[in-house]
Amino acid sequence: MDEYHFNEPEPLINLIKALKRLPGIGIRSARRIAYHLMQYDLDGAGFLSKSLSDAVASLRHCVSCNGFSETELCFTCASDFRDKRLLCIVENPSDQNSVESSHGYKGLYYVLMGRVSPLDGVGPKELNFQKIFDRVHAGNVEEVIIATGFTAEGETTAQFLIDMFSSANIKTSRLARGVPAGSELEYIDAGTIAWALIDRKIIN
Amino acid sequence: MDEYHFNEPEPLINLIKALKRLPGIGIRSARRIAYHLMQYDLDGAGFLSKSLSDAVASLRHCVSCNGFSETELCFTCASDFRDKRLLCIVENPSDQNSVESSHGYKGLYYVLMGRVSPLDGVGPKELNFQKIFDRVHAGNVEEVIIATGFTAEGETTAQFLIDMFSSANIKTSRLARGVPAGSELEYIDAGTIAWALIDRKIIN
Ligand SMILES: [Zn+2]
Ligand SMILES: [Zn+2]
Repeated sequence: MDEYHFNEPEPLINLIKALKRLPGIGIRSARRIAYHLMQYDLDGAGFLSKSLSDAVASLRHCVSCNGFSETELCFTCASDFRDKRLLCIVENPSDQNSVESSHGYKGLYYVLMGRVSPLDGVGPKELNFQKIFDRVHAGNVEEVIIATGFTAEGETTAQFLIDMFSSANIKTSRLARGVPAGSELEYIDAGTIAWALIDRKIIN
Repeated sequence: MDEYHFNEPEPLINLIKALKRLPGIGIRSARRIAYHLMQYDLDGAGFLSKSLSDAVASLRHCVSCNGFSETELCFTCASDFRDKRLLCIVENPSDQNSVESSHGYKGLYYVLMGRVSPLDGVGPKELNFQKIFDRVHAGNVEEVIIATGFTAEGETTAQFLIDMFSSANIKTSRLARGVPAGSELEYIDAGTIAWALIDRKIIN
């Protein structure tokens, strides 16, 4: 069916366009969500509008770990109870949460907010690997634990990181392959991740 | 995995909650969308926020057809070129658009914004059938064309409408069953809908 309807009011068209821009939302879903909100959940529409503007206004990246934060330094990075000699590199905040929930790690994190994906034009430069390298050097990090996913893109990302740290003689490890190959970290149970942390393999 | 992450900033949690409230969006999709917006599309987040608040502030239901409108009377209802003796009752604006795109109809509309669904607690009262009845009486409507879907719920809705108009001796028709059974109107091509309009069957 057509994207736009006969004589549809402009605020409704704009709302459908804005929803369609979200990842994974097609024109039909966008239209269904817009109708639902305008017909049954005006409060939900207002809540989402406010949450979006609040998030845009107040969220930033932690200067140390690159995760989302309201403050310059996030809660985890600012904590006195974390072992600052260990730095665990993850792809996204959900992966960080998976590692945290294993209760097997008390070091710090760096959140890539992505992974190397040559097909999408995402390489070490786009992910700002230089910043990670500077972070490791400046922070007296004794071991970098690479916890990217065991997917093709996660492995590629890991290899780039390993190469970078190897040439600088920085001790680098990777989560043990207790994690089933081909899966994303965020789908793995805490016990498996705890084992993968214990079995992490020193690479250089 | 958990719904909420360790030490996640509150504006991010609020955004994920607001997205999760949308129909068809689960916790994983909500989180993925939130990360995407905050990482890659702050403009899109701002656009969606503004579109939502604009829509909430300016959209209302047309007093005549119940469709979405910025004005008291929508563009279609206010037009001098529509045949006011015909009233076509549809489930939602997408169905209205399907009928319009058939170019086989020049009358007016009433948009139910739903359909009778006893399991969801939606009956004639929730859909405000009395308002439709009053609209038909007040507007000198000579024929009501029922264009609800040929699904179980669409048929139930049609039967309620037919019963209501029959007892008041109002001429009522239904789109011809040229529309494949079990499908939604919005998925049907314009030609099939044009034939279904021509073949509409007078019920009483
Ligand atoms: Zn941080
Ligand atoms: Zn109208």
